[in-house]
Amino acid sequence: MAEDVHAKIEAANRIFGDGFERGDAVAIAALYTKDAALFPANSDIVRGGGNIRDFWQAVIGMGIKNAVLQTIEVEQHGDTAIEVGKYRLLAEGGAQADAGKYVVVWKNDQGTWKLHRDIWNTSQPAK
Amino acid sequence: MAEDVHAKIEAANRIFGDGFERGDAVAIAALYTKDAALFPANSDIVRGGGNIRDFWQAVIGMGIKNAVLQTIEVEQHGDTAIEVGKYRLLAEGGAQADAGKYVVVWKNDQGTWKLHRDIWNTSQPAK
Repeated sequence: MAEDVHAKIEAANRIFGDGFERGDAVAIAALYTKDAALFPANSDIVRGGGNIRDFWQAVIGMGIKNAVLQTIEVEQHGDTAIEVGKYRLLAEGGAQADAGKYVVVWKNDQGTWKLHRDIWNTSQPAK
Repeated sequence: MAEDVHAKIEAANRIFGDGFERGDAVAIAALYTKDAALFPANSDIVRGGGNIRDFWQAVIGMGIKNAVLQTIEVEQHGDTAIEVGKYRLLAEGGAQADAGKYVVVWKNDQGTWKLHRDIWNTSQPAK
């Protein structure tokens, strides 16, 4: 069962990355629950599908072409799972624009695991 | 029961702030599980009590005199709880050094709720 959730989360994360490749913020936002919250650095909390779409659209607009997500751990509690991972954001030609780590709280939404709480920060030195 | 966890987490968060007031990184590190992980911005993942103590000691050394933690939500799953909150780091005289949000995964460690995964980022504009 835990293996199953792990695989499903990794599959959702690949769809997340594919959304960046296509520049499709609508597809990325669809991976979140209806009452999801993002916690981006240098920003207040971003809540709800429209705002989450707009946030990722802005990131795509900044030239991010892919998000590579590496799951480090998944801990399941019924319809909730906590994922810890590392990310890399890639710009044109695969140049690394950012790299860091994240914690995502996932919810099983009628059989589909969706991001519910999503927080990350950069591991790169302060500018 | 959920109320109880909420109150216990808030109490632990006050001890966290008290540790800053006293400049006591050992007391702060004691609030974490033995295999806890911190995810600070501009840093790799920080794992284990000694490294967590050293991290907070460095923050204290930068002049942070208090950490004010405001719990927004607590979701309990048995011996695990997920907290979302906002923080303010205060310097000498109560001047705000930073403000942001966090997600903490807590574990009930033989009756004491301890921080197990701790990630945050600033809500202030990029410098």
